[in-house]
Amino acid sequence: MTKTSVAIVGASGYAGEELLRLLLRHPAAELTAATSRQYAGQAVGAVFPRYRECQLPFINPDAEQIAGRAEVAFLALPHGLAAEYAVPLLTRGVKVIDISADFRLRDTEVYARYYKTPHPAPELLSRAVYGLPERYADVIRTADLIACPGCYPTSVILPVAALLHAKLVETTGIEAISLSGVTGAGRKVDLPYLFPECNESIRPYAVTGHRHLPEIEQELAVAAGVPANAIVINFVPHLLPVNRGILSTILLQARPGTTAETAVECLRAAYDGKPFVRILNPGELADTKHVTMTNMCEIGCAFDARTGRLIVSSAIDNLTKGASGQAVQCLNLSMGLPEDAGLN
Amino acid sequence: MTKTSVAIVGASGYAGEELLRLLLRHPAAELTAATSRQYAGQAVGAVFPRYRECQLPFINPDAEQIAGRAEVAFLALPHGLAAEYAVPLLTRGVKVIDISADFRLRDTEVYARYYKTPHPAPELLSRAVYGLPERYADVIRTADLIACPGCYPTSVILPVAALLHAKLVETTGIEAISLSGVTGAGRKVDLPYLFPECNESIRPYAVTGHRHLPEIEQELAVAAGVPANAIVINFVPHLLPVNRGILSTILLQARPGTTAETAVECLRAAYDGKPFVRILNPGELADTKHVTMTNMCEIGCAFDARTGRLIVSSAIDNLTKGASGQAVQCLNLSMGLPEDAGLN
Amino acid sequence: MTKTSVAIVGASGYAGEELLRLLLRHPAAELTAATSRQYAGQAVGAVFPRYRECQLPFINPDAEQIAGRAEVAFLALPHGLAAEYAVPLLTRGVKVIDISADFRLRDTEVYARYYKTPHPAPELLSRAVYGLPERYADVIRTADLIACPGCYPTSVILPVAALLHAKLVETTGIEAISLSGVTGAGRKVDLPYLFPECNESIRPYAVTGHRHLPEIEQELAVAAGVPANAIVINFVPHLLPVNRGILSTILLQARPGTTAETAVECLRAAYDGKPFVRILNPGELADTKHVTMTNMCEIGCAFDARTGRLIVSSAIDNLTKGASGQAVQCLNLSMGLPEDAGLN
Amino acid sequence: MTKTSVAIVGASGYAGEELLRLLLRHPAAELTAATSRQYAGQAVGAVFPRYRECQLPFINPDAEQIAGRAEVAFLALPHGLAAEYAVPLLTRGVKVIDISADFRLRDTEVYARYYKTPHPAPELLSRAVYGLPERYADVIRTADLIACPGCYPTSVILPVAALLHAKLVETTGIEAISLSGVTGAGRKVDLPYLFPECNESIRPYAVTGHRHLPEIEQELAVAAGVPANAIVINFVPHLLPVNRGILSTILLQARPGTTAETAVECLRAAYDGKPFVRILNPGELADTKHVTMTNMCEIGCAFDARTGRLIVSSAIDNLTKGASGQAVQCLNLSMGLPEDAGLN
Repeated sequence: MTKTSVAIVGASGYAGEELLRLLLRHPAAELTAATSRQYAGQAVGAVFPRYRECQLPFINPDAEQIAGRAEVAFLALPHGLAAEYAVPLLTRGVKVIDISADFRLRDTEVYARYYKTPHPAPELLSRAVYGLPERYADVIRTADLIACPGCYPTSVILPVAALLHAKLVETTGIEAISLSGVTGAGRKVDLPYLFPECNESIRPYAVTGHRHLPEIEQELAVAAGVPANAIVINFVPHLLPVNRGILSTILLQARPGTTAETAVECLRAAYDGKPFVRILNPGELADTKHVTMTNMCEIGCAFDARTGRLIVSSAIDNLTKGASGQAVQCLNLSMGLPEDAGLN
Repeated sequence: MTKTSVAIVGASGYAGEELLRLLLRHPAAELTAATSRQYAGQAVGAVFPRYRECQLPFINPDAEQIAGRAEVAFLALPHGLAAEYAVPLLTRGVKVIDISADFRLRDTEVYARYYKTPHPAPELLSRAVYGLPERYADVIRTADLIACPGCYPTSVILPVAALLHAKLVETTGIEAISLSGVTGAGRKVDLPYLFPECNESIRPYAVTGHRHLPEIEQELAVAAGVPANAIVINFVPHLLPVNRGILSTILLQARPGTTAETAVECLRAAYDGKPFVRILNPGELADTKHVTMTNMCEIGCAFDARTGRLIVSSAIDNLTKGASGQAVQCLNLSMGLPEDAGLN
Repeated sequence: MTKTSVAIVGASGYAGEELLRLLLRHPAAELTAATSRQYAGQAVGAVFPRYRECQLPFINPDAEQIAGRAEVAFLALPHGLAAEYAVPLLTRGVKVIDISADFRLRDTEVYARYYKTPHPAPELLSRAVYGLPERYADVIRTADLIACPGCYPTSVILPVAALLHAKLVETTGIEAISLSGVTGAGRKVDLPYLFPECNESIRPYAVTGHRHLPEIEQELAVAAGVPANAIVINFVPHLLPVNRGILSTILLQARPGTTAETAVECLRAAYDGKPFVRILNPGELADTKHVTMTNMCEIGCAFDARTGRLIVSSAIDNLTKGASGQAVQCLNLSMGLPEDAGLN
Repeated sequence: MTKTSVAIVGASGYAGEELLRLLLRHPAAELTAATSRQYAGQAVGAVFPRYRECQLPFINPDAEQIAGRAEVAFLALPHGLAAEYAVPLLTRGVKVIDISADFRLRDTEVYARYYKTPHPAPELLSRAVYGLPERYADVIRTADLIACPGCYPTSVILPVAALLHAKLVETTGIEAISLSGVTGAGRKVDLPYLFPECNESIRPYAVTGHRHLPEIEQELAVAAGVPANAIVINFVPHLLPVNRGILSTILLQARPGTTAETAVECLRAAYDGKPFVRILNPGELADTKHVTMTNMCEIGCAFDARTGRLIVSSAIDNLTKGASGQAVQCLNLSMGLPEDAGLN
């Protein structure tokens, strides 16, 4: 079998490193380029002893060079920069799977408001598809620009979109409280992320206006079949002392008749046959330790009859299902491979 | 100065050990008895090397013996058992500061519903005062049975009671999402609390019907001036891999005109001069690492104009302000000492 | 291809759970039985949500039943108990791969001294081979009773045996200081292993006479070509707050001419072509985070010219290369499969 | 009582912050200046929410200004820089308690070799005393330049110096394996100290030639009564995922007759009456969790009759007894205060 040649652009961050982990053992993909300004010239295995056996040298990011080596490029870059590479790569016929935020939002004004900068490539937005395979598999299969969801949005959209679509919950009163491990902040060499600053610390941050907020609202509106911007939620992220994992606890207003049982039934129907969604029994709750180092999203439901709130808990590994694993899942769809190739 | 003689009944759990830490250095209290069935006969310092210098031997719990040695007894016992000791101790004239749940709830039916057992000593409820010094200092000063609040309730009631009392937020739509370190589960030798089961794990539990729920609702109703049971909230606890600390993120429905600024102003006025409440500036958020090993409750407020939700974050050390530190604060009030004696 | 049917006897501890992880995805093995007294009757996936998709029910351990279902049985049992199952399984023609300590030591008197009980099945010792594939591949291929090494011994023997064999270091003055994560203690529901007792704690234990000590000495003597008991070492284990991983720092007396460079050269020659030994460059040191969740042993060497000590650091995942991964590696050799089948 | 006015020069690192914690509650010291280039102009309490109540503004470091405000200056600065401030402060009559390495080594050539730079102020060395109160209390009382020991040296020297002095162990074959929490690296914003790089990682570093090595050797030679440089040891530090704490496991060659019992007896005699040394019973071992947030050094001894090695374990909090607590202990001696003032 001919393997698909793939490049990782921005391979030295945590999402990039996770792509290395997944692609180096992928049965149908061959890593032919990995870029890193910082480590250009050094072998991947010299920089990451975990992959010591990989002799591929990091190169400086350059669209021409990447296009000469790879059919598919994963962009693990900061927003803004991703678009800078997406444009010339697409022009050269390279399929782009973007882990950044550049092509997730349909509305350039919303992008500008949350990212404090004009959208870097609005002309590409119509080509981009939202890379959440459980909801957009068909368009992912044929797209050449795939915008992988953010980590928090993945954990929130998977359960809530299905419940909204089935009209088990109201479109108002949605509140997502999310708890993330520190790799979620990226390999950012900054004081708040030092070990002693994070260890034995629990703290919320960006409790209004986090950049993942509009992405969640956009996709929930699609699922609910209401106009864009018709869904307004609270999204409250927290930073916790674990390496990997996001746990989202989501409070939803149940519609009449909705219970933990009907919610579980709805989610099981919605994700029947999907390899990376696990719906727990009614009353059972998700735990990040069940999903770390996997591409699974684990979802549990409970119902509080006193308040009428459906309480959904959802757990993913922020680097796998929340970023690089999902990107590989998109690659698989895109290449006509089994959805779980290289992910089990 | 004559020191007050104090006993710790149930000194081998985490709350008991924290009482040891605080009372062994308290300037006006002298630890004269510490009970532990498990360690009876051994010196405190032999069991807890941290307090190696303490030669006091653990004794079996016995009301007669305790009454012969101490003016005040701290009960760090499971609910149910606490009442068993409170009765004979009070009879013998010993002042009781109870860290268990036995005397927190005014309504014995609510107690029976949440603790699955009839109230063990309903006749004492009228003597008991709720040991939250920031709200009940006057009655704490003269009571002989002080029921210290639970850890989660302390973190929720302090901010929310003041905001409700000042009518800055609605009495409906209150949601408290709380994140606790593992000492919050007590020194419970049980599989879910083993290091590898907790480390690198984030998980919700008891998301409906946690035993601390009715206590929060009871006190918020008092603060709001509405009938008992008129306030119905969601309380969603989570277990996290830290030793100490609770972070509660509380979503409240702002009344017209309420902002982060007015909320901060209200809280500063409510707790003016209180040594153990720290109100952050508007937009700043609490972090458990600012309060561990202290008796402080740190509170921050943010406002989401899009949803009208006031987002309050509150951090305490679950063993100090959430249990034993608060108990010592009650002792101080009770003995006419400075409120922060032995707590700084 | 016909898969080998395998059973896990004692599947609910950490080593058993790791066997589940590895065997459920093994390309040439099929898990046909998993025993657990505690969980008998429940599906594996119901007990371990991580393997939720596995419908196989736990059964009570019974040699007859296991022999009826599996060609190979992995024993993840306490010492003593393992021998009780090994005997009837071997009688029924089941190949046994034992993760316990029962068949590691050649000398039953040493066993009795360190395990405080007579050897449970001395008649089997002559059939047992020491399951360290990098040193005993040939005999592992044909044995029907394979005694997998302990976790600490694996980390120490791999580097030191090769250096002794090549006479780069003396047979005296060997000191191994080992640091282990908490899963190394097993899924033991005991006070010292509670999260708050381990977190933020660093502590040595069993610094003389640990049960893994004679096993290390036995194998080092073999490698050095000296009589059994001719090598006497210090082995000082410590417990640290990580889930997985052992780091052994080993001090060795260099023979004249030995340096970090010659040691690295020696180790590279000794383990040339071995898929699970990674020798770092001279002066580089091992780190557990490079090997967790893998079957790799990473080894680094430094030389202190002032004292003549060669300092070797060696890192493994205690549950993988230190237990279950190594057992699967033995299975692979035993079945004529690629040594790394199911391990990458 | 008039309080001693004290300054912290370099108050924004971890050692500086620990000085803040200790001095802000010290009964006989008053913090009158705290310097930080980074935070100059901001209040201490605004930068460190834990000390929110402290209104003192950080100032830029300036000897003139400091001398105008304080009788004693603590230097929590990098080596080299400390000397730059020590000179003008001493000139202006300010007593200097230095936490850096600048005045610990008696031999400027050794300093130059290990710190890769000429000694910045050799003329001051004769005025400096080594600030280990358990061994140099007399000279500390009268010195005006006190060089506080490094964290690792404190944990090693306290037990070994006493055992060498009493001739219970040989001066050869000394090996100290030390395990440190991440605050030991300082508040250094550098990739290796990010939370995800340290968490779930165990790693040795600088296993030959660490800067604390010559300091240990110097002091052990003094204690043994042998010429400087007559003692040559191995010192092997490791970095572990805890915030605070050093555990040193030290292997020593026992002289004839030495056992765990005689070693414990010797240490108890040597440190009789010392408030900050705790000698465990023979066979008991130290644990960092017994000493964190205290100024205690906990020491345990075991003896391996098979190898003749005495195994000593010693635990301190690297920021307290290993740095700032010890500095305050020196202040106390220097001011004629009780040795434990502000430290309990």
